[in-house]
Amino acid sequence: MTSMPHDPLTVSQAGEDAVVEVLRRVIDPHNAGRPGLFLGPGDDAAVLTCFSAQTVITTDTLSEGQDFRRQWWAGSPAKEWPQDVGTKAAAQNLSDLNAMAATPTALLISLTLPPEFSVDWVRDFYQGVVRACSQTGAQQCVVAGGDLGSGPEMSVTITALGEPREKGRLLKRDGARAGDVLAVSGVLGYAAAGLALLEQSMKPVSSEPAAHAWEALTGIAAQCVAAQKRPQPPLTAGVTAVRAQASAGMDLSDGLMRDCSRLARASDVRITFDDAALAAEARVLEPVARQLGLSDSVCRDWVLTGGEDFALLAAFPPEVPLPEGFRRLGSIESGPAGVSAETLGTHRGWDSMRSE
Amino acid sequence: MTSMPHDPLTVSQAGEDAVVEVLRRVIDPHNAGRPGLFLGPGDDAAVLTCFSAQTVITTDTLSEGQDFRRQWWAGSPAKEWPQDVGTKAAAQNLSDLNAMAATPTALLISLTLPPEFSVDWVRDFYQGVVRACSQTGAQQCVVAGGDLGSGPEMSVTITALGEPREKGRLLKRDGARAGDVLAVSGVLGYAAAGLALLEQSMKPVSSEPAAHAWEALTGIAAQCVAAQKRPQPPLTAGVTAVRAQASAGMDLSDGLMRDCSRLARASDVRITFDDAALAAEARVLEPVARQLGLSDSVCRDWVLTGGEDFALLAAFPPEVPLPEGFRRLGSIESGPAGVSAETLGTHRGWDSMRSE
Repeated sequence: MTSMPHDPLTVSQAGEDAVVEVLRRVIDPHNAGRPGLFLGPGDDAAVLTCFSAQTVITTDTLSEGQDFRRQWWAGSPAKEWPQDVGTKAAAQNLSDLNAMAATPTALLISLTLPPEFSVDWVRDFYQGVVRACSQTGAQQCVVAGGDLGSGPEMSVTITALGEPREKGRLLKRDGARAGDVLAVSGVLGYAAAGLALLEQSMKPVSSEPAAHAWEALTGIAAQCVAAQKRPQPPLTAGVTAVRAQASAGMDLSDGLMRDCSRLARASDVRITFDDAALAAEARVLEPVARQLGLSDSVCRDWVLTGGEDFALLAAFPPEVPLPEGFRRLGSIESGPAGVSAETLGTHRGWDSMRSE
Repeated sequence: MTSMPHDPLTVSQAGEDAVVEVLRRVIDPHNAGRPGLFLGPGDDAAVLTCFSAQTVITTDTLSEGQDFRRQWWAGSPAKEWPQDVGTKAAAQNLSDLNAMAATPTALLISLTLPPEFSVDWVRDFYQGVVRACSQTGAQQCVVAGGDLGSGPEMSVTITALGEPREKGRLLKRDGARAGDVLAVSGVLGYAAAGLALLEQSMKPVSSEPAAHAWEALTGIAAQCVAAQKRPQPPLTAGVTAVRAQASAGMDLSDGLMRDCSRLARASDVRITFDDAALAAEARVLEPVARQLGLSDSVCRDWVLTGGEDFALLAAFPPEVPLPEGFRRLGSIESGPAGVSAETLGTHRGWDSMRSE
């Protein structure tokens, strides 16, 4: 079975070995010259070189229906859907390593596909993974291998490995102290606003053709859609934070409120947001709210509870100047562990197990 | 949200944090005292201690419908289904490490569950994972963490990490040489025979009550069902093989024919099976064929193409006595890479991407 540059076969017609051959043509050139991969795909397991005394490791799954809908790419070139899914699946794991101040060294990818998916889809997906590994902060990361399987729904689980970078120091959740400044690097609420744009564009509109309005978006709205489809976490922010003496940190995957509550509980501190800072974050998103015909108040919801921003939250001692890329969100105080509730309403954040 | 020893809540009712609390009660006692886990579940990523200069890593997914059916456990105590799925998901990954002569050090688990699954199911699943890590050869393996998600189908992806054990030597696929002896440790065809028993028991039988006949099985039939539901790979065989100068090896996950073809291609050798050895392997399974009302010839199919045996295949130089636990299957010869086809018919083996 040979596979052409544009392979019209389905993965079921091609079979596992031919699909592996196609994806190797994407990942082998990426892996070449990167020193971390001692033995690449093709044996029972991959073998990585350990450069330090610790390995930082995380895993995350992305599923069609649960995490994205293919209709979000209706009207886009065919390769964008698999490329964006590959980028997002990799990025959410790279973000977890960033949140520990670790440098990514390797990804392992377990891909489950319905039998009618094309071999081209797999190639484009891996191109999206490689794109995520080309971001500053992830450039030493190899794609070490994985597993291919068949199932009724597309899903992918990526495991990411990294090594502590800055003298072995880790950015943990439990070190924040009263008096610290709470700061963030990366966008807030963009992915939630992008989700709202994508979902709204799928609703039938009686008076207009069923065009996919987000294709014509510009400015902040286009950035929000991109943040949802192919996030770009600030992958050097974790190491930057540790170098700047950050006392604690984590990435924002389930929404600012929910994730801040976790950091507050882990550190046994109280987090109080600056109202002006939250207002400034929300204000940026107001053009999107207007485009959707929604009140400006929805922007604060996006900022406080929107998931998948993959921004980096960190606490810094008060005497330390915030490093480049970080902006102040609030302060760390003593008191019952949690997040100050003034002006926050009933915001809760994303729970991966709950049906909404 | 507190979780009682027997939690009647669904995962959707309980929410992610409560489910994590329950699974921590299973894995924390297992992890305690094992030196490999520097930072366990609860932060953005886990941190493992590296004891050697290399990490061996593999990943595999198990999905309901594709890899098992819950009806296989109809009539069994409720905990057996999740426990067996946990054991099997872990075992298939531990087997890949065994196949590299690596000692397992850590598992990462990404579990996707339909919202109506119970919190108890998650607890029992993790008990099954811990059971697999209690097998000889895996006893230093920690459960480092993972990810919980919701989806329409139950699936689990486990990533397993290990370290080369015997002076850093790896058991690769590409070292077999003409003159070597082909040998195996572990069972052949048992998982396929067990699958046939489980599938047959689900067919409605007009003249009898719809009892689950496998509950009453004994002897070889019971062993075959167990091999399918909760495999026990020979987890010390990889290190044993390397100590005995094995030139190549791999585990049998897609069937003897298919996996031998891969080893033959990787080593550029020809594999010829001993007919008498295959016949002896098949003969063991004849009581199962008779129980199913099938001709004895099906036993050879099970041996040659049955997947999921997780036995260890290895090639040894002719002058070396086969180590304990290994039995001879054939020989390695020069010639066009492949497997000798006499008496083999059209046997092919399992392809994870093809619809059968």
